[in-house]
Amino acid sequence: MRTRVLDEPAAEALPAAHHDDGEAAAGPSIDTALLGEHLLGRWGEVRRHSRELLREERYHRIDGLGMAEHRERVLGQLRQLVADGAVHRAFPRALGGEEAHGANIASFEELVLGDASLQIKAGVQWGLFGAAILHLGTERHHEAYLPGAMDLRVPGAFAMTETGHGSDVASIGTTATYDEAAEEFVIHTPFRGAWKDYLGNAAKDGRAAVLFAKLITKGVDHGVHAFYVPIRDEAGAFLPGIGGEDDGLKGGLNGIDNGRLHFDRVRIPRTDLLDRYGQVAADGTYTSPIASPGRRFFTMLGTLVQGRVSLDGSSTVAAKLALTIAIRYAAERRQFTAGADDAEVVLLDYQRHQRRLLPRLAQTYAMSFAHERLLEKFDGVFSGAHDTDEDRQDLETLAAALKPLSTWAGLDILQECREACGGAGFLAENRFTQLRADLDIYATFEGDNNVLLQLVAKRLLGDFAQRMRSADAGDIAQFVAGQVGEAALNRSGLRQLAQRVADFGSTARSVGFVRDADSQRQLLTDRVHTMVGEIANRMRNASKLDADAAAELFNQNQNELIETAIAHAELLQWEAFTEALETIEHDGTRQVLTWLRDLFGFTTIERHLAWYLLNGRLSAFRAHAITDYIDDRLLPRLRPQALDLVEAFGFAPEHLRAEIATGAERARQDEARAHYTELREAGALPTPEPSPKRR
Amino acid sequence: MRTRVLDEPAAEALPAAHHDDGEAAAGPSIDTALLGEHLLGRWGEVRRHSRELLREERYHRIDGLGMAEHRERVLGQLRQLVADGAVHRAFPRALGGEEAHGANIASFEELVLGDASLQIKAGVQWGLFGAAILHLGTERHHEAYLPGAMDLRVPGAFAMTETGHGSDVASIGTTATYDEAAEEFVIHTPFRGAWKDYLGNAAKDGRAAVLFAKLITKGVDHGVHAFYVPIRDEAGAFLPGIGGEDDGLKGGLNGIDNGRLHFDRVRIPRTDLLDRYGQVAADGTYTSPIASPGRRFFTMLGTLVQGRVSLDGSSTVAAKLALTIAIRYAAERRQFTAGADDAEVVLLDYQRHQRRLLPRLAQTYAMSFAHERLLEKFDGVFSGAHDTDEDRQDLETLAAALKPLSTWAGLDILQECREACGGAGFLAENRFTQLRADLDIYATFEGDNNVLLQLVAKRLLGDFAQRMRSADAGDIAQFVAGQVGEAALNRSGLRQLAQRVADFGSTARSVGFVRDADSQRQLLTDRVHTMVGEIANRMRNASKLDADAAAELFNQNQNELIETAIAHAELLQWEAFTEALETIEHDGTRQVLTWLRDLFGFTTIERHLAWYLLNGRLSAFRAHAITDYIDDRLLPRLRPQALDLVEAFGFAPEHLRAEIATGAERARQDEARAHYTELREAGALPTPEPSPKRR
Repeated sequence: MRTRVLDEPAAEALPAAHHDDGEAAAGPSIDTALLGEHLLGRWGEVRRHSRELLREERYHRIDGLGMAEHRERVLGQLRQLVADGAVHRAFPRALGGEEAHGANIASFEELVLGDASLQIKAGVQWGLFGAAILHLGTERHHEAYLPGAMDLRVPGAFAMTETGHGSDVASIGTTATYDEAAEEFVIHTPFRGAWKDYLGNAAKDGRAAVLFAKLITKGVDHGVHAFYVPIRDEAGAFLPGIGGEDDGLKGGLNGIDNGRLHFDRVRIPRTDLLDRYGQVAADGTYTSPIASPGRRFFTMLGTLVQGRVSLDGSSTVAAKLALTIAIRYAAERRQFTAGADDAEVVLLDYQRHQRRLLPRLAQTYAMSFAHERLLEKFDGVFSGAHDTDEDRQDLETLAAALKPLSTWAGLDILQECREACGGAGFLAENRFTQLRADLDIYATFEGDNNVLLQLVAKRLLGDFAQRMRSADAGDIAQFVAGQVGEAALNRSGLRQLAQRVADFGSTARSVGFVRDADSQRQLLTDRVHTMVGEIANRMRNASKLDADAAAELFNQNQNELIETAIAHAELLQWEAFTEALETIEHDGTRQVLTWLRDLFGFTTIERHLAWYLLNGRLSAFRAHAITDYIDDRLLPRLRPQALDLVEAFGFAPEHLRAEIATGAERARQDEARAHYTELREAGALPTPEPSPKRR
Repeated sequence: MRTRVLDEPAAEALPAAHHDDGEAAAGPSIDTALLGEHLLGRWGEVRRHSRELLREERYHRIDGLGMAEHRERVLGQLRQLVADGAVHRAFPRALGGEEAHGANIASFEELVLGDASLQIKAGVQWGLFGAAILHLGTERHHEAYLPGAMDLRVPGAFAMTETGHGSDVASIGTTATYDEAAEEFVIHTPFRGAWKDYLGNAAKDGRAAVLFAKLITKGVDHGVHAFYVPIRDEAGAFLPGIGGEDDGLKGGLNGIDNGRLHFDRVRIPRTDLLDRYGQVAADGTYTSPIASPGRRFFTMLGTLVQGRVSLDGSSTVAAKLALTIAIRYAAERRQFTAGADDAEVVLLDYQRHQRRLLPRLAQTYAMSFAHERLLEKFDGVFSGAHDTDEDRQDLETLAAALKPLSTWAGLDILQECREACGGAGFLAENRFTQLRADLDIYATFEGDNNVLLQLVAKRLLGDFAQRMRSADAGDIAQFVAGQVGEAALNRSGLRQLAQRVADFGSTARSVGFVRDADSQRQLLTDRVHTMVGEIANRMRNASKLDADAAAELFNQNQNELIETAIAHAELLQWEAFTEALETIEHDGTRQVLTWLRDLFGFTTIERHLAWYLLNGRLSAFRAHAITDYIDDRLLPRLRPQALDLVEAFGFAPEHLRAEIATGAERARQDEARAHYTELREAGALPTPEPSPKRR
């Protein structure tokens, strides 16, 4: 039998299960305006500006448009963005931009509120095509090509991915071979798998492309470089040697004309190599400021990190939107009766419904605060304020860690919100299904989530090895001994026993334990360190193995590597949430957010409970205390705060655009109750058929 | 440090990580034809017949149709089903049917291969509208209304759900008040929340409806009954007093014209009450063969269990389809290099990819075998062969347990398959996204999954109480003591310690333990029993509490109740899988399926590992052994069997209709390799830029 193990003094009265939304919420109250500002973050002003634009119908998705009409509408919306001056923040001041990188991304992320197709097509044009010219090109490219990219005279494709290679960009097949005599590059697609694929703007609108190909000169393959390549004439016909296909209907984002491109010995001038990181002289001599081809490749790709950064942010915006709709509905919708008055219960008063929505709300807050840190880091690097090699690596690792978690969470949250609203959630008018269909691809584009997490894991292992290398042999021996010793303890259960016996003597201490932020930090941090150490230890002989055996060893640990990277990213989110608490000076708001942070921390720990138990980090007693604390304290405390917590997201009705978030459900239920009351008072309510007496 | 704890003698050689698909698979071989027959099950013949029809293009979904065209196409497909004699199996022989209930559902489930809209619209017409006339009406209704329903002269809506009430059918607001003078029922919608909503056939095609309303006669409310109500005239206009709305675009299933209906004092003849379970005489006297209004209600609803049965089956069909596509692609697609020859690795050779797809394949097999048992049970009840009250209750509980798991698994599997195929998975041409969009609603219609699972939990608690009641006081005292004693043991860790110490002495026994089917059964069964017992114990005083406190107590246990029902359903799936093994007489096939069953069992246990550890059912040592057994034994053994395991699902190319399942990827990669080989042999392969020497 599991009995409740909490004996915490009931400092705050628990709200009754049948909390009436009409009454003032029990407990502390949130300053939603202040909290809203915190959530908007450093670039709150541009976010608000972007949201103001997005209240206008001309930026809204129209459900049910055919693919061709939808594409036309989104192209038109991009033109409006140009006219509204909403998309040039990242570009050089000399060309009318603001060189404001964080602000640019912040503004861009909000576009998902209008239509995810609008957001991603804008991302293709200015965040990929334009940004590649900016970051991989040099001044002459900026002057020649940025104006057309910026004002959309030249819609452009970002021709990196090929049918045969997606996340593994280094293995693409397209070649750009330098012809010294003509001083031209010859762009060529040598086989079907090397067709460029899934490119926005490629099927219809694109006039040019930033094309990635292997640069070959003097018989040497210098690896992937970017080139500016015109692809269509003014009339929209492919230029000679260029062909393509429409990717056709997709699972979502059908306002974007994704397509394929192939090149048959297409010649471009030598000067259209975007040559910031690699130059070819007229005589074919290759030079680069970065000696190592590997480092050069990752540096070039690193300039495009903003795609990942912005997907992290826009998934968070979409999650906020979905939770606002679902929690508003859950606070109004009544279903099934309970209790003495036989009244129907509001969905959000059901424990299961709280378990479904409130931890996801906590997760969304964590995502929001973590994203703010990522955006700060991004702005620091791209503004040049903090732009060391280490800064860039940190930025890439942070983006690679957070993007997978938030894009997966976005899908999970949209789906849970959809189901939590039942049949109404399935209607297009209530937003969930279309957003989910659109955001689906966020999990695999701009780097497949599972691939990105392996990059994170490799970095974690690298850091670990660094620490080990800088330690002397004695330290390493001690480390290994410590590891082995720990395993032995776990296996015999002695360590767990010790903890349990200690726990058993003091329930109060256990409850205190679960409420302590340091305990949460310790549990989350320890898990990451231990997992990294374990894998490192298992791989410590990899360098002595032959290549096949080393690959096999890596593969045997692949799943756990990815789980380790996830653990690391969860810790980053938790740290960001905790750090944000410190800056909130309003007591009630900080109190509620602390509960929400605890809910995030504890549900994260609960999800990995088996690991904590197996590794002797939590006793059974403490594990129970965590679950009880979630169910018996945190959820009931946060229930009356839920509406304020989504109110703070700050969406206007024109952003929500969901019939079930308008109060219509409450009005319907009031009408129904009034009807029955009227019948009852008139004596016209039919009496229920009596149940036969039980024997 | 976690070291691998398996020391099982390597009876079978592990296949190498770089298994070449061209070679014969290592290990035992599957008789795919024989296994295919097993999977098709008792109604294999009708399933095959249905699949033959579904190879024809006229039954295929056309992606990108507008909603209006899609609806037209699906209506036309329903007419073709009539012409092909594919949809009348369940109806009376006298009317041209076969009274073959299991066969009918089996045939129906396969329709999802053509288009889920086709399936669900057929379900509305024949499985809901027609079936309600059949099961809730009497002979005169059958004669008058079934022919039109069967041959689609009268498309019909199943008007049960209201905007205000979905899964809680008992609380609907529509009334049917008997008017003795006119001998008519007056159908009325008293408020907006009582509009019928989400009804297939309501927006456009429906000419009649089976309408659920509260039957009121002589001032007494006899609860929900069904009525036959014409709603549109020959020209498609609403009849007087009837109105409605189109539900518009949905997340999926847009080939179905879902809509709303409302009734303003619409009169129908007394005889159009579908009166099998409740009759109203001309003078307004109400009679029923079932005295208890509650039991009568559940009996009426119980006749409609086939909706849940068939969703369980069709989710399983969709999961099979998705896995066939994704595993074929994963066995061809290469990405990233590893090993000595620097060759790109096939996706399915990556551990993570195996972890993503193979447990889901095992789950799909479990769903398939469990569904077969459900269908047998359904056929037994509806054929009258096994039709006691207990049989009906068992059928309902089984359907309520399996439908949530398989509909959720269907979505999860479709999504994981989509992501596992990257950008290609997002293209409509590869099927995943549209199927997922369509199947989304399966999780909440025909009974919301979370509501159904609570019904299961209540049944489990009821059975438990029954056993307790039939025991004498001494037994109960002993039971309670046993429960408390167990908790104390767990808390002090003594029991776990004992197990651990025993384990520690014998690794061999632990490995044997994990391979033993009885251990899996014991672990899964014990979990269900323990969880039920714990909740029952916590609720044992509920009858002494006032109504509010009792409701509160129930609510505090709601999440765990649902988890208990899920544990029960997982056990049912495991038992079905295990039972199926016994009937397979081909050694190789049985061997591979035994591994697959073990993978299902162990990944299920692994998912709930925290519970097993907390409750002292598994030691840390055994828990590690389970994970190691999955990663180091089962996945590598099943990897070379994966293609055969999906081959056994028996889909033709016309069912798959996915470009990435055609072998195109392998052809592209062969072409790419041939290109590089040719260059290399001609000495024309550019040399890679050398990396600068490390210091």
